[in-house]
Amino acid sequence: MPVYKWAEENLVVVVQEINFKIETMRTYFSVITILIACSLSAQTNDSAVMRKIYDHYLTESKSYKNLEYLATKIGGRLSGSKKAEEAVYWAKKALYDAGADTVYLQPCMVPHWERGKIEKCELNSTKLKISKKSLAITTLGSSVSTPVAGLKAKVISVSSFDELEKLGEANIKGKIVFYNVRFNDKNIVPGTSYGETVKYRHGGASRAAKYGALATVVRSMTNARNNSPHTGNMKYDSTISKIKIPTYALSYLAANELSDALEKDPDLILFLQNESKNLPDKPSFNVIGEIKGAEKPNEYIISGGHLDSWDNGQGAHDDGAGIVQTIDVMGMFKKMGIKPRRTIRTVCFMNEENGLGGGNAYFKEAEEKKLKHIAALETDAGGFTPRGFGVDTTKGMYAMVSKWAPLYKPYFIEHIKVGGGGADIGPLEKLGVPCIGFEPDNQRYFDIHHTADDTFDKVNKRELELGAAAIGSLIYLIDKYHP
Amino acid sequence: MPVYKWAEENLVVVVQEINFKIETMRTYFSVITILIACSLSAQTNDSAVMRKIYDHYLTESKSYKNLEYLATKIGGRLSGSKKAEEAVYWAKKALYDAGADTVYLQPCMVPHWERGKIEKCELNSTKLKISKKSLAITTLGSSVSTPVAGLKAKVISVSSFDELEKLGEANIKGKIVFYNVRFNDKNIVPGTSYGETVKYRHGGASRAAKYGALATVVRSMTNARNNSPHTGNMKYDSTISKIKIPTYALSYLAANELSDALEKDPDLILFLQNESKNLPDKPSFNVIGEIKGAEKPNEYIISGGHLDSWDNGQGAHDDGAGIVQTIDVMGMFKKMGIKPRRTIRTVCFMNEENGLGGGNAYFKEAEEKKLKHIAALETDAGGFTPRGFGVDTTKGMYAMVSKWAPLYKPYFIEHIKVGGGGADIGPLEKLGVPCIGFEPDNQRYFDIHHTADDTFDKVNKRELELGAAAIGSLIYLIDKYHP
Repeated sequence: MPVYKWAEENLVVVVQEINFKIETMRTYFSVITILIACSLSAQTNDSAVMRKIYDHYLTESKSYKNLEYLATKIGGRLSGSKKAEEAVYWAKKALYDAGADTVYLQPCMVPHWERGKIEKCELNSTKLKISKKSLAITTLGSSVSTPVAGLKAKVISVSSFDELEKLGEANIKGKIVFYNVRFNDKNIVPGTSYGETVKYRHGGASRAAKYGALATVVRSMTNARNNSPHTGNMKYDSTISKIKIPTYALSYLAANELSDALEKDPDLILFLQNESKNLPDKPSFNVIGEIKGAEKPNEYIISGGHLDSWDNGQGAHDDGAGIVQTIDVMGMFKKMGIKPRRTIRTVCFMNEENGLGGGNAYFKEAEEKKLKHIAALETDAGGFTPRGFGVDTTKGMYAMVSKWAPLYKPYFIEHIKVGGGGADIGPLEKLGVPCIGFEPDNQRYFDIHHTADDTFDKVNKRELELGAAAIGSLIYLIDKYHP
Repeated sequence: MPVYKWAEENLVVVVQEINFKIETMRTYFSVITILIACSLSAQTNDSAVMRKIYDHYLTESKSYKNLEYLATKIGGRLSGSKKAEEAVYWAKKALYDAGADTVYLQPCMVPHWERGKIEKCELNSTKLKISKKSLAITTLGSSVSTPVAGLKAKVISVSSFDELEKLGEANIKGKIVFYNVRFNDKNIVPGTSYGETVKYRHGGASRAAKYGALATVVRSMTNARNNSPHTGNMKYDSTISKIKIPTYALSYLAANELSDALEKDPDLILFLQNESKNLPDKPSFNVIGEIKGAEKPNEYIISGGHLDSWDNGQGAHDDGAGIVQTIDVMGMFKKMGIKPRRTIRTVCFMNEENGLGGGNAYFKEAEEKKLKHIAALETDAGGFTPRGFGVDTTKGMYAMVSKWAPLYKPYFIEHIKVGGGGADIGPLEKLGVPCIGFEPDNQRYFDIHHTADDTFDKVNKRELELGAAAIGSLIYLIDKYHP
């Protein structure tokens, strides 16, 4: 082939290639332009819908009214109690009122523990001239009672399980073990401090019983320097000790008082008395409301909180707030006339506080019936100003939700982090369901958590509604955009 | 030149160029590597210092103790009052106690308005069979009083200044004007709703007096549905009307009651009575504490809040919180043994609520003495969980502060926006001083703003301390990095 011919042909090829590349790039840019335009238009449209959702919540939400009823008319509603039963029927009605197509009562078994009336802790020290000084105390959930006449013993203060082990039977037998471990004020998230100390509340009794302790006492898990003791669940571990001893939490100030007194008089005597009872398990229910999906009715997006609460307060933040916020999800779809593509469920779980009977029952049915869950959201951190969401990376859920950050920015939700969920929806993770935890501001939660102070007046109407709006809008977006 | 020679020479040049480029790139990359390393190491080091600062605040801060004294022992401290005077001497001592080298009392003149004891609003309607029904009301700051026996008149409800103008003298003369403008619950930031409605409180009296109104009444500027009226300052504008008429705010619920009653009986009669007094201006003080700078003592970084408050509450959030948080800036440098490069000042401004006498006096001295201010930060939005800072772009301040976002992320400060400041430091903007506003969570502020409910028990210790830490650490970083 002559050189010119070669050059010519190659030139043609080169030109063709250039043309092809230009064409490809044109197509490419067109596609990008269309995508950008679509995305911008989608975002613009979504922004407008978000604004409407927030308007709805800030003017028409039933969350606050519902919470007022649940917290002040029903009040504390521990699993197995009459109040918990009352809450079940209230939730059923509230879900229908909100606009659920159907409301199911899903059976589950729950523990039935009763606190009893007497809860006494008295400090006695001849050396310090203290006699029968009353300390604010609460029996921990599932704890057995003292003998009817109470019990009297010396106290041994320990700062960790390691120290307990080292002290052993020689130092512990016949005494009351005081897990004198403070909540760490330096942790920015109080939940971190809770995570560090809750093991003494939950598992401290059997560990101490193993060495012959008569009872255990923990510090209330809180930053708040007041006299309200914080209850919470405990569990006896028969693999550690067959003996069940009573176990309690002292208020922040009472724990300081005991700690100070012990330094001055290690031989002081504590008197403890309570009359709690572990009764046979009882049948109860999760309450599930749903709006059937128009396109994919057999796919579920669920949100929920827990309907039970501790008995000492009104269960307003924990978790009345979560219950009314997720009941409001039904209200949003119905009132705004949005037809969901998938079936949207609100699940009012029973028995989060002391057994997870409800969470496990929901999981079991979902597993048996092979129900396809697209996402599960739990709100159980109080009705405070929303800060963000913790989202599982499972099946790309985090990637999807984090893309909506710009939509949430005008609402000061600036925090979408990897990893989330909740105790009730936790079991669903075994089925590969992407879980999401709603994250409100967390500074005040452990001030009132599991105390008599967890009352309706501690909940701010707007903060509660903004949280409900954050949750409702996320359920809307997932339903709209999940492929 | 033969071709090979040309090629050879050019090749040399090309090789030289390539070598030069490689060398340049090497240098460039070295510089970048060093810069990245320095920056990373600086950030790592700053992260560690930030952590120490937060540890200090969360365990040793005096903010809460100081606020307890200021709010509960001194209490409401309106400019010109004995309580305000007491607050000045308290602030002086608190600044010295915190570790200030020097504390100045900077003179300023302030208005002296007294509320008096009687504040009455009674609803009367023959048609509705209502007689002397008491409505919760508060006189607005600077308002004149009614005649001693009070005044009785019909009420005309208006929804805007435009409507007022349209109604004119024919409809207004001899009546009480009710600026029936609701706080907009749809605004995500309650401050926006405040901005929309405060004009009726501040300037509504003279506008109505122009048409012969006898008094004006506004709705309390709040989302909170309760019976606490919200006071606040007003101003007579003699260019609009020479006649000064008394002016008030009704509580949220009382305003609803009046509004509802007016719909049913437009002829109802309101009785108003108050005995407020505008007395001659009085001398007072800003209280300025400082720690002298080691390198540039003539350059100032200031932070502050306002020492005065309304008289009806304790001025806990507004602005006791800001006062104790910025007094704590002194405490942080001193306790942590950090020697500032520049002079760090805490300014407790007097008279933010009704005149800005203190802010103007500070500006005047700064202008006259040509004091070089590097930055001025104000905290006057309550002691709630910190969310971020609003920062002026002046002299690159925003660019500098926004770079520290990663340092603040572990502390959930996720919001650094353009534009900030405060009423007291506002005048300094005329001198080109970059201003910064501290931005805590804003949902609850207008629930208690200027009411009897602005009390110490509404302030959460940790939220207050986390705010103080955010402010203290920012002052530290500006001092360290400002060129």
